[in-house]
Amino acid sequence: MTPAENAELALLLEVAGTPKPGNVDRERDFPNLRFEHFLAGAVGAGTGLRSAENGAPVGEAFEEAVAGMSQQSGGNTQFGALCLLVPLVTAGEPTPDAVAEVVESTTVEDSEGFYRAFEHVDVYVDDPPDGADEFDVRRGTDAISAIREGELTLFDVMELGADEDDIAREWTNGFERTFWAGERIAELEGPLSGRGAQVYLELLAREPDTFVAKQHGKEVAESVRVRAQEALRDGPELIHAFAESLVEDGVNPGTTADIIAGGLFVALERGVSP
Amino acid sequence: MTPAENAELALLLEVAGTPKPGNVDRERDFPNLRFEHFLAGAVGAGTGLRSAENGAPVGEAFEEAVAGMSQQSGGNTQFGALCLLVPLVTAGEPTPDAVAEVVESTTVEDSEGFYRAFEHVDVYVDDPPDGADEFDVRRGTDAISAIREGELTLFDVMELGADEDDIAREWTNGFERTFWAGERIAELEGPLSGRGAQVYLELLAREPDTFVAKQHGKEVAESVRVRAQEALRDGPELIHAFAESLVEDGVNPGTTADIIAGGLFVALERGVSP
Repeated sequence: MTPAENAELALLLEVAGTPKPGNVDRERDFPNLRFEHFLAGAVGAGTGLRSAENGAPVGEAFEEAVAGMSQQSGGNTQFGALCLLVPLVTAGEPTPDAVAEVVESTTVEDSEGFYRAFEHVDVYVDDPPDGADEFDVRRGTDAISAIREGELTLFDVMELGADEDDIAREWTNGFERTFWAGERIAELEGPLSGRGAQVYLELLAREPDTFVAKQHGKEVAESVRVRAQEALRDGPELIHAFAESLVEDGVNPGTTADIIAGGLFVALERGVSP
Repeated sequence: MTPAENAELALLLEVAGTPKPGNVDRERDFPNLRFEHFLAGAVGAGTGLRSAENGAPVGEAFEEAVAGMSQQSGGNTQFGALCLLVPLVTAGEPTPDAVAEVVESTTVEDSEGFYRAFEHVDVYVDDPPDGADEFDVRRGTDAISAIREGELTLFDVMELGADEDDIAREWTNGFERTFWAGERIAELEGPLSGRGAQVYLELLAREPDTFVAKQHGKEVAESVRVRAQEALRDGPELIHAFAESLVEDGVNPGTTADIIAGGLFVALERGVSP
């Protein structure tokens, strides 16, 4: 498999892993966001992922992948996962150093591609950090002017968000959680999608999910973390109850799922395969 | 979505449809053939499907798709489905006339590509029809020499098998069941993978599955057909019991599943989408 194929397969294995409390998985659909939206999102992202593999700039390949992903009616399925996968595919080899070099070399044009990607799909976005209102993605083309004036590379943009958003933080810390997940997935045994689901829970138990924190506040995110710990300790029955309660409360640890997609890619690139 | 993307998505929606008695689906793995093998098979087939879209000869694109599909440890996941999808993608428009023109224009070189595809994966093959022993795919390169000497196009090869194999018969009768399935899928409502599962059962109730006939004899295939009829009539509980009994008896109506993949492609190309 080529890196672009492994990235697409990682998106599919991620959504197939079950149980992944709070997220769509092989056994759970939400009323307006279903398993098959993720299948279509993964296939549609393929063109952008192949562009990344063929050396297109990160921002351009990302926008293309998001535009392709958006050709289904479920809305945002894999925006965050593609934020990780595009530079990982570009890097050519699955190491923290290689991907750090890619993200640190991004340009102002890459930022523009990133901002344009928001025009293809509704992404849940929180208020920008203090003093960064002019770079708010919700300002559309006005924000792009500000980015140009401020000469912000895509790495700079991610640095602005790194305190509040775990995908942005991956960009600034050498994809630490992504590679941790990749190593855990590689060392576990059994079907790959099941390993993804296990490591999803382990990640969730380690740190609060920033997507949950944005939508429901830090206390809820911390309580999800503690309950993930308990579920891991007590096994299947509690995991099931935990999943049910997250769905009931509309709590979706989407960032953690995105990092699992990145981790599955790392494991696939290092030679693990279905 | 491009035709090649719709073909890949059709493979994914097919395996995601549940319950599909006797086959791997969103809710069922077999011990050595799992859902994720089908995910990897679909992604791997992408290169060959894109070659078909870009005008590569049918035999060459088919061999490439099968080689890509085989990059997983489950074995043959979608060989039969690709026999239908490659000419459908090549046809450019989803009509019986267009695909008939493609298959009737195949050459001896296309036959060679088809025979070479068997080298990439173990495909269950029955004895060839009387008088056609020299073209038995199990003879490997010897059969290719015979094909060349006899100047058999891939359409000729399919004609030899059309009495015993429903995929071959699709080639010789304008993809009749594939288009029937496509129309049924387009006219039903709800998630596409669920429509695929419904039409799978309807097809199974109409005609005996030829893959079941090859492996277990015509009587078993006919009894599966009758039980599919009963299951359709009596609803979910009987469908579930039917599914369990097929798994217990090792009966796998794989040809019918392949035709559903073709039907999903037709529906997607005609504008239905997740």
